[in-house]
Amino acid sequence: MNEPALGKGGYSGAMALGKDYATQECSIARALEVVGERWTLLVVRDALYGVRRYNDFLVHLGIPRAVLAARLQTLTEAGVLEKRPCADAPRRHEYVVTERGRALWPALRALGAWGLDTFGGTAPLRLFRHVACGTELGAAGECPACGGLVPVEDVEMLPGPGLDPEPSDPVSRALLAPRRLLQPLTTDPV
Amino acid sequence: MNEPALGKGGYSGAMALGKDYATQECSIARALEVVGERWTLLVVRDALYGVRRYNDFLVHLGIPRAVLAARLQTLTEAGVLEKRPCADAPRRHEYVVTERGRALWPALRALGAWGLDTFGGTAPLRLFRHVACGTELGAAGECPACGGLVPVEDVEMLPGPGLDPEPSDPVSRALLAPRRLLQPLTTDPV
Repeated sequence: MNEPALGKGGYSGAMALGKDYATQECSIARALEVVGERWTLLVVRDALYGVRRYNDFLVHLGIPRAVLAARLQTLTEAGVLEKRPCADAPRRHEYVVTERGRALWPALRALGAWGLDTFGGTAPLRLFRHVACGTELGAAGECPACGGLVPVEDVEMLPGPGLDPEPSDPVSRALLAPRRLLQPLTTDPV
Repeated sequence: MNEPALGKGGYSGAMALGKDYATQECSIARALEVVGERWTLLVVRDALYGVRRYNDFLVHLGIPRAVLAARLQTLTEAGVLEKRPCADAPRRHEYVVTERGRALWPALRALGAWGLDTFGGTAPLRLFRHVACGTELGAAGECPACGGLVPVEDVEMLPGPGLDPEPSDPVSRALLAPRRLLQPLTTDPV
């Protein structure tokens, strides 16, 4: 327990390109070991938007297949997503966000609000409202009218003024309509 | 404006090891382009804890010098930290967290709370309270008693039951005492 922090840091050079934080005990570091890799939080974002199928993640994120497959595997192993057979096509799979994954919503909301504030100039692509009262969420996902943190399933997502009204991929097209978060997103077969 | 998303995605393969998200317009992606690189959010965490000096970041994070220097430069260029001469040693520099950096607190708090919930079993290292009322913060940095998001300067950080009581580095020792976030941390010269 009293192992010197700098002793553990001794191999941090070799770990610099890995994804763990061997010298850091803190829970932020633990979180980043799961969701800190490049693209990972954007996969979780899409899952919260209702994306469930490999091909839908692929066209919406526009990332290499190998990266997507690795991220989906990491998130499934970490219990953030659950891989299961599709109801309508049991030989295909879908990735459904779990309770643990839903709990990442406040962090994603806070990062998004910070990104919008920091790199303003562009209008928001999406607006988020508390279904119960219609109030736009605060920066950390709280409802300024009702006072508390709004559970992700009670958030409605609407197109914002910055959104491209004629996107080319079917997932972006499906996301043009107002929808609740988590509501499964379906696209026409490509 | 109507450039096809998949057209832009055409070069994402070559970008896979970069830090931008050329196919993604969203503000979460913009945020991650600044704070999504490995170690970056832990540097911001330390800055919010009051760490200001290069050597203090170095001993507390235990990361290679080149990585730390690169992250400090990225964060300074992005306006998250401000590099300025030390008051007591004008030929040395310190990195002070800006308003823009303070605004990352809810995202860090949310990630930390998620990490603690997800990888339980260990007791929390640090507790965070609303100075005004003494209530422990909720998962997104809100005060359950007062209702709103607590500004980072009104947060008191206390050692939690999981914290090593005899850490080896001077920054960890300084963080054993209760302190307000942002309060400049000073260590004995090494």
